[in-house]
Order: sequence, then structure tokens, then C-alpha cells
Amino acid sequence: MEHPWLKLSQEIAEEIKIRITPLLGKPESGKIVGIGANGAPTLRIDEVAEQTAIKVLKKNLASFLLISEEIGNLVVGPQPELFVVLDPIDGTLNATHGIPFYSVSIGIGTNRTPLFEDIEFGFVENLETNDTYFAFKDKGAFLNNKKISTSQQSSLKEAMCSIYINDKSLGKVAKLCRTIKRIRSLGSVALELCYVADGSLDCVIDLRDVLKVTDIAAAKLILEEAGGIIGNSNGSKFAFELDIKRKLGLIAANKKLFTKVLGLTK
Amino acid sequence: MEHPWLKLSQEIAEEIKIRITPLLGKPESGKIVGIGANGAPTLRIDEVAEQTAIKVLKKNLASFLLISEEIGNLVVGPQPELFVVLDPIDGTLNATHGIPFYSVSIGIGTNRTPLFEDIEFGFVENLETNDTYFAFKDKGAFLNNKKISTSQQSSLKEAMCSIYINDKSLGKVAKLCRTIKRIRSLGSVALELCYVADGSLDCVIDLRDVLKVTDIAAAKLILEEAGGIIGNSNGSKFAFELDIKRKLGLIAANKKLFTKVLGLTK
Repeated sequence: MEHPWLKLSQEIAEEIKIRITPLLGKPESGKIVGIGANGAPTLRIDEVAEQTAIKVLKKNLASFLLISEEIGNLVVGPQPELFVVLDPIDGTLNATHGIPFYSVSIGIGTNRTPLFEDIEFGFVENLETNDTYFAFKDKGAFLNNKKISTSQQSSLKEAMCSIYINDKSLGKVAKLCRTIKRIRSLGSVALELCYVADGSLDCVIDLRDVLKVTDIAAAKLILEEAGGIIGNSNGSKFAFELDIKRKLGLIAANKKLFTKVLGLTK
Repeated sequence: MEHPWLKLSQEIAEEIKIRITPLLGKPESGKIVGIGANGAPTLRIDEVAEQTAIKVLKKNLASFLLISEEIGNLVVGPQPELFVVLDPIDGTLNATHGIPFYSVSIGIGTNRTPLFEDIEFGFVENLETNDTYFAFKDKGAFLNNKKISTSQQSSLKEAMCSIYINDKSLGKVAKLCRTIKRIRSLGSVALELCYVADGSLDCVIDLRDVLKVTDIAAAKLILEEAGGIIGNSNGSKFAFELDIKRKLGLIAANKKLFTKVLGLTK
């Protein structure tokens, strides 16, 4: 498949990969160099990746609105028609620890005050394996140009789920652990949502309320185009602006499991 | 480094990789084909990998005692001087789901009624990336022939830990989650122990009491040779026979963290 947004995203992923490779598994790449727009610390490797992406975007686009994890909202050029939601590295701690599971996440759309639902193109690349997930709205989801769909798993007991909890969500742990037996926490939610999209995982449950719109935006479209369902930790839709300051939980699953998972987390 | 046990292990890993590649990410490779020596179901892909390993062992060794996940204890040839503890695929569910994190684990020693401490050589290969961890007793641990050692992390708050719990260990979850903030569950304990050995992770905590000696045997030596400490879920040493029927929990960490982790799980 060819499309300028896909080509642009591939170029961003390739350049980020080149620039961060010398930093992988190096403790110094995890050094805090500032505080990001979302209030979380910016690590050296995040900064390098974001600056690399911005350079590629500026080379390719005359004007755009960027919503990115560290820099926040950045308007480049006059009256941008296009917006880009970017997580330059999702799974930063994996990357700095040398754990081969981290990704770049890019969502693109054309609304000027973009909502979640305005994303028309979603792209997530596993920067270790180069596996590339993407979706265009209403046109299906793809892994390495091959159409993907969610699993058909309907049993919570058999389901393989990524689960993230913290001390604030402890009350829900017992119910989750008594029902779901195959639990993972791989450390890159964008990529784990794509794993639900292609059926490698059956669901993702994140009850920490720490995710940012940049973690979710692109993978949400990929998952939905693959037939999956995603919502906030109470199951409601992400029907709001792409605001970098929001802190989110999520539940994502195939159609057969979504309501069952929701029942466990309520 | 060259050594007949290393060469043998590399050949086993290579052959397993060739034979299981067509089965990766295929639901049918996760079909239950029997019950293993440890009482757990044997999946198709486990059986293929184990049979492949046995073939390579028979080709290279005139006699040996094999302790393996599915087949249990198998004596080949007269009066074997050598024992091999084998997990043909650690992380089987990852492999059948297409999640790129699974390994082969091989421990070798010369005692006739082998104990954990009789393992003289440990080998774990990440079958997706070909990263190869090995250790000879008292000679250090290596990743791709480069000497490795555990992290120096001494803060539980900053530590990155793989944690496995189930409904039997729920009582310990609150204390764990309030203290440890960077939690993973990658799905191959043998490989995660090697990640502690090379400092990618700081600790592994498995409180499910479902692990087998074959999951732990090789990686235990690798971790200890890298400067780490490993014990049962109550902290005691694995000072007993390599009996496939045992079900084990574990705590593994660098030297600075081990006692602190133990304090959390008591």
C-alpha cells in the first residue's frame, strides 16, 4: 500500500530508529532532561526521538499541528490543515533497559481542534522488529501490509491479557486475578493494543489512569479497524479532545470479550 | 568461547528454531496433545521442540540422563555420566500467540542423581532474537560471548521487576504494588532471569508456585554467575533434587535488592 501519510510515518520511524540505536540499553539514555508537556519527566532518549520526528515532519510538511508527548502542542507554518499525534517512543523504559519491546506511535487527521475520533490514519511500528501496524479510517487495519483482525477468544479464563495496575486500583486485582490466568505486562501499551488488533493478545486492561492521548491515539484506530473495542477504564468512549494533559485508563478487547472484561473492572 | 556443551546447546537451539518457526503464532500449535511429566498439558509446539532436542542429544551423546518438561526423566545409553535439564520452549504461550519472547533453556552437569547445585553449565537462548546467555560454574556469565553482570539498582521504587502472581498470592499484591512501580510480566521466566543477570531487569518475583525445575535450572546458574541471588518464594535456596514434579516459586534479584524484595513478599 502507498499513501503519503504512510510514507511519512515510515520515514519518521526509520530516522528515530537510526538516532536511538546508540542509546538502547544505556542507563544514561534514561537520564531525566526536563519535564514534558504532560507533567512527566522527559528522558534523554525521548528528547532525541521527538526532535528527530519533528525534523522529518518539517522536511515533509509546510504546516501542521503537532501534539507530542514531550513538547506538547506545536504549530508549524501558517493555518495547519493537518494534525499529527505523536509518541516518539512508547515503552521508553524498555528501550533504556535493553528490553526489545518499544514502538513509535503516529496518528494523523485533518480537523483543526482534533478529537480522538478525528484520527484518520494510525501507525505503530515495533522499533525492534520493524513490524509495522497501520490503519486508515473505514479501510481496515494492517500488519506489514497484511490485513489483520482481532482474536475470536470469548473465554476470560483462556484469554491472554496485558494488565497494568497500581496502588490506586488494588481493589480490582482480586477479581481480575481470579478470572484471567494468562497475564502479561509488556511495557508498550501502543504496541499491546496492536497485539489485540492482530489477535496476539485478547485484551489490554490499564487501570492506572496514567496514559496519555499520545499513547492511545494511533493504536485506537488500528484496533477499531481490526474489529476491536476500546474505551476508558469505565468503558466509556474516548469522545474528547486530544489534550496532552489528560490522564487515561483503558480497556481494549475483541468484541466477544469487551463487556466481560468491563464486568471484571467495575 | 568454545566448549562441547556450548556447541551442543547451540545446535539444539538452532534445530528447535528451524522446526518451530512454521508453528509460531498459529493457534493449532497451541493444541493440547497430552499431559507432561509435570502434570501440565503438553502443547503441539512443546512436543515438536522436545523431540527435536532429543534427536540432537542422541546424535551427539552416547549416553545421558534427560530431565525435560514434557517427557520427564529419560535415560539414553548405558550408565550416563552426564545429565541435561531441558525446557525446549520456555514461554510457549508467547510463541503460539506470536509474541516475540520465548526461549530454550538447557542445564548440564555430571552427577548421577542431580541436584540444582550440580549444574555446571547453563544456557538460555532467546529464540526470536538469537541472543544467547550462558555460564560455566565459577567462570562468569555471558551474553553473546560478552561477560555480563547484574544491575547496581538498590531502590525498589526505581527497580524494574517482572512479577507473577495468581489468586493464591493475592495477599501480597498490595505491598508489592505500593513499592514497586515498574512492573513487567514478559512471559518467559528463564529469559527474565537472564535479564536480571545482564541488568535489563532488576528482579523477578514469581509467587504462583507453578514453576518447574526445567524453567529455572539453567538460568539460575547464569544469574548467580552474574552476581545475582535466587531463592524460593520464601528466600530459601534451591537445595534439592532436579525433580520435574516439584512446583516452585522464586525470587531473584541483584545483591543489593534481594533482601529488600524478600521483605516485601514475606
